[in-house]
Amino acid sequence: SPTTEGTGRSHKLAVIGGDGIGPEVTDAALTILDAAQDRFGFTTERTEVPLGADAYLETGDLLTPEAIEVLRSNDTILFGAIGSPRVTPGILERGIILALRAELRQAINLRPVRLYPGVPTPIAGLTPERCDLVVVRENSEGSYVGGGSTVHRGTPGAVATQGSTNTWYAVHRAVDFAFRLAEQRRGKVTLCHKTNVLVEAGALWLDVVEEVAARFPDVEHDYVHVDAMCMHLPVSPERFDVVVTDNLFGDIITDLGAVLQGGLGVAASGNLNIDGSAPSMFEPVHGSAPDIAGKGWANPAGAGLSLALCLASLGEGEAAAAVESATAEVLADLPELSGATMGASTAELGERIASA
Amino acid sequence: SPTTEGTGRSHKLAVIGGDGIGPEVTDAALTILDAAQDRFGFTTERTEVPLGADAYLETGDLLTPEAIEVLRSNDTILFGAIGSPRVTPGILERGIILALRAELRQAINLRPVRLYPGVPTPIAGLTPERCDLVVVRENSEGSYVGGGSTVHRGTPGAVATQGSTNTWYAVHRAVDFAFRLAEQRRGKVTLCHKTNVLVEAGALWLDVVEEVAARFPDVEHDYVHVDAMCMHLPVSPERFDVVVTDNLFGDIITDLGAVLQGGLGVAASGNLNIDGSAPSMFEPVHGSAPDIAGKGWANPAGAGLSLALCLASLGEGEAAAAVESATAEVLADLPELSGATMGASTAELGERIASA
Ligand SMILES: CC(C)[C@H](C(=O)O)[C@@H](O)C(=O)O
Ligand SMILES: CC(C)[C@H](C(=O)O)[C@@H](O)C(=O)O
Repeated sequence: SPTTEGTGRSHKLAVIGGDGIGPEVTDAALTILDAAQDRFGFTTERTEVPLGADAYLETGDLLTPEAIEVLRSNDTILFGAIGSPRVTPGILERGIILALRAELRQAINLRPVRLYPGVPTPIAGLTPERCDLVVVRENSEGSYVGGGSTVHRGTPGAVATQGSTNTWYAVHRAVDFAFRLAEQRRGKVTLCHKTNVLVEAGALWLDVVEEVAARFPDVEHDYVHVDAMCMHLPVSPERFDVVVTDNLFGDIITDLGAVLQGGLGVAASGNLNIDGSAPSMFEPVHGSAPDIAGKGWANPAGAGLSLALCLASLGEGEAAAAVESATAEVLADLPELSGATMGASTAELGERIASA
Repeated sequence: SPTTEGTGRSHKLAVIGGDGIGPEVTDAALTILDAAQDRFGFTTERTEVPLGADAYLETGDLLTPEAIEVLRSNDTILFGAIGSPRVTPGILERGIILALRAELRQAINLRPVRLYPGVPTPIAGLTPERCDLVVVRENSEGSYVGGGSTVHRGTPGAVATQGSTNTWYAVHRAVDFAFRLAEQRRGKVTLCHKTNVLVEAGALWLDVVEEVAARFPDVEHDYVHVDAMCMHLPVSPERFDVVVTDNLFGDIITDLGAVLQGGLGVAASGNLNIDGSAPSMFEPVHGSAPDIAGKGWANPAGAGLSLALCLASLGEGEAAAAVESATAEVLADLPELSGATMGASTAELGERIASA
């Protein structure tokens, strides 16, 4: 039943459906959003921004200044997925996804790893109480800066270098964000890196963690190498509350985190702009999955939970909590978490979550 | 019962027990080796090489030219573990482990991911038939080259760079090794990298795989991003036969592989010199675990299975197979795979495997 109170606010929302299953899961998220608006009394003004393989193949443009301007003029962005077998791998990912994160100064990639009750996980004996952590992934630098060169390509003398730039500026804002978040959670930050091999970048991360930790006497902190993290995360996720990590390691360990949660279909993320200079962008962790596009086999839960993160960031806390719990509830009833045997289509699930 | 045949050969074996649980698990491996020698009629001439925290703290030396000479004069090396809380993290790892791999031109880090029958795995429903792959990790370069610099350390202007060098020379030998290995196995090679972000290094790996693949028409090959690998490996390891990958990604995914096998205590590895210029080195994937050192809680299976890889590389195929199956058999009977509740001490397990 619709409430008469509600926040009464209006939010400008840009929507990037993208490629493959992106538009399907985004449509489902918008159905959920409609229900949340009715129930919690806020409105959104939505603008679709056509980015992805189709636009690229038609126009040759990846991310135009105009598209960036439109995105900037919104309060927040819902993103589906981008990537297509019709385009050389990497072009769309770097030219759109990574470019958006950079252009919109989305400093943090926030990725909750939470197992919801009733959702099947492939980890034997794992329970929801033991699996509730958040990965704070630095979202702008490290090996993602793209530096490097190749000489003698195609010959036995070929040498490819690849750069990694790590700044106090970006590491500090990620670590500071992680400690603030931990203060509101269970009070523990774990740095995940590979300091014994990547000594320069590793020392910077360690320095910054010590520096920030001194300002948060109530937050514990420890350190785990990225290789060891892959060993601990599946079997003892309860060791972790907030994990703060480098761009590349964050990319890797959050896909593993998604396994614990029941698969990529369930994992949500937020690319957070934390200086107010541009909107944040919320996206399911899964990709465009072109092989199942159009079949209705994609699980909209990742998109639904990303919508919940989006609503929370807009200050619509009640709506966010309701969307999260409705998504979790519907998830718990599915026979399978994706594919032909999911028991309902992407759109039907969107409607089910919306009514829940 | 001892056979009278046997290979009759003698092998010069260097033994580096190292730190923490390293000497315990290595002693257990040597007990197993004694039994294998008796049974299969070969001998070893063993030389202990004292490397690790004790030697370093006493002498200040990490890896002396003399130690390298001794190691070089052997046919093979058994390695326990190195690393100690008494030494700044990274010093021993880089100064000894990584230095040995480089000095002895151990081009390949071979890491089988195999679940033995009866061994408990944390992955729900995983069966031994579905989990039998080998990771061929490039062992000499990538982000392990150690280049990089830091400016303005300790200030908000700090910037740390970290290099990665990738050569046709090293990538080609790893990829070629992987295809040869796949030919003797199920005929499939999977390249694991992050080509959509690490474009220079990624293109080199892709080029080399195409080039080598053309010479192996009977070996299939495909490609999986390292993040996606962390999602697929736990739930569908049967997709993989031989996985060839970069030094850092190999480090990360093999710790995850160890989880499938029942934990780090069970995982074995070989640092292979493939040009005959120096001996190979066999080591359990686990570290020195100083917290449980001296308690007899370490599982010697990783060391035992590494001994099996060592024997195979020496041409003692029958002995290798016997050591592998004896280790697997004893593993299958343990109530827990490590710790106080393992049901027997490290040394007792060594003896059990030896009699098996
Ligand atoms: C598509 C790719 C560039 C991206 C990344 O590496 O960050 C993706 O894997 C992710 O995690 O969002
Ligand atoms: C100790 C460390 C330097 C080493 C590595 O990173 O290679 C270890 O993690 C390994 O996998 O053998």
